[in-house]
Amino acid sequence: MPHSIVFAGVREGLWQVTSMTTLIGADLPIVEAIAMHGGDWEGDIGSSWELRGVPSNMRYSTKSELSALRAIQPDLGRSECRRAALIPIKKSAAWWQLAQDERRAIFEEDSRHTAIGMSYLPGVARRLLHSRDLGEPFDFLTWFEFAVEHEARFQELLDRLRASVEWRYVEREIDIRLTV
Amino acid sequence: MPHSIVFAGVREGLWQVTSMTTLIGADLPIVEAIAMHGGDWEGDIGSSWELRGVPSNMRYSTKSELSALRAIQPDLGRSECRRAALIPIKKSAAWWQLAQDERRAIFEEDSRHTAIGMSYLPGVARRLLHSRDLGEPFDFLTWFEFAVEHEARFQELLDRLRASVEWRYVEREIDIRLTV
Repeated sequence: MPHSIVFAGVREGLWQVTSMTTLIGADLPIVEAIAMHGGDWEGDIGSSWELRGVPSNMRYSTKSELSALRAIQPDLGRSECRRAALIPIKKSAAWWQLAQDERRAIFEEDSRHTAIGMSYLPGVARRLLHSRDLGEPFDFLTWFEFAVEHEARFQELLDRLRASVEWRYVEREIDIRLTV
Repeated sequence: MPHSIVFAGVREGLWQVTSMTTLIGADLPIVEAIAMHGGDWEGDIGSSWELRGVPSNMRYSTKSELSALRAIQPDLGRSECRRAALIPIKKSAAWWQLAQDERRAIFEEDSRHTAIGMSYLPGVARRLLHSRDLGEPFDFLTWFEFAVEHEARFQELLDRLRASVEWRYVEREIDIRLTV
């Protein structure tokens, strides 16, 4: 699967782990660093765990939301962004059995997911990878990059999302903070 | 990926190929039969090609559509269903770059995809497998089972969908008909 991306929990890597916090569900083994690989990578005897995801199409955004996002969304890898977070998330079976309009209503009309995320752009760069169809242990791998001075704002973003109705459907979430 | 399903083009199998018609895009090599395997199957020296997909959540159905579908949707494997079709489909990059509300509008409000499919239930049993996030050559693997006497109705279902606005975004489609 060369179009996918693998995050490997390792002992040495560019992004060093500063904390790993399990918010809900099962832990992941503690690691010192995260290495990123293209999907054709065949694994490494030195990795403690590996999480795979793929960029995919947007699942909830309307045309106007997508236009606004595309206009403001920064690239990854900005030189000032020396902090990152990898937050793998799994939602419940109840979430996935909902119809599209029910999930959309919870995601945006109730929880303001896109609107909240937008208000932290371009300071906090975000990327979403999809894992559920790959049979992975998490449904999503979310990746964030930001400058040191945006760390408090980033925490505020997470606090707001975690207080939302949408998050009642999250059954596993691990917050891995990183520094380069 | 044990939750996925693999369709293998083979020389001998339960479902024998009666025709393979490429509607648009590149062909698949002609095979005599289709074998189905669970996703942990590791391949077979005797297969000409393999296509993998996963059952996933519904991407467009509203709550009322989903309720109606679940109420009427028949099981696969009914004894009278001695005809089947495997139709792998790939949509264009232009489709996938559309926002969710744009895709929904084309899928249902313009093309009546669910409504058309519903009107052939329970005669034509359908299953949709998702392949795009797996890096597969097709985005979807669609599977249909029906009794011999429903074959003309099945063809009518396909003709109606292929005449829809949604189908302008289909860039590869192969219609494989099968008999047991």
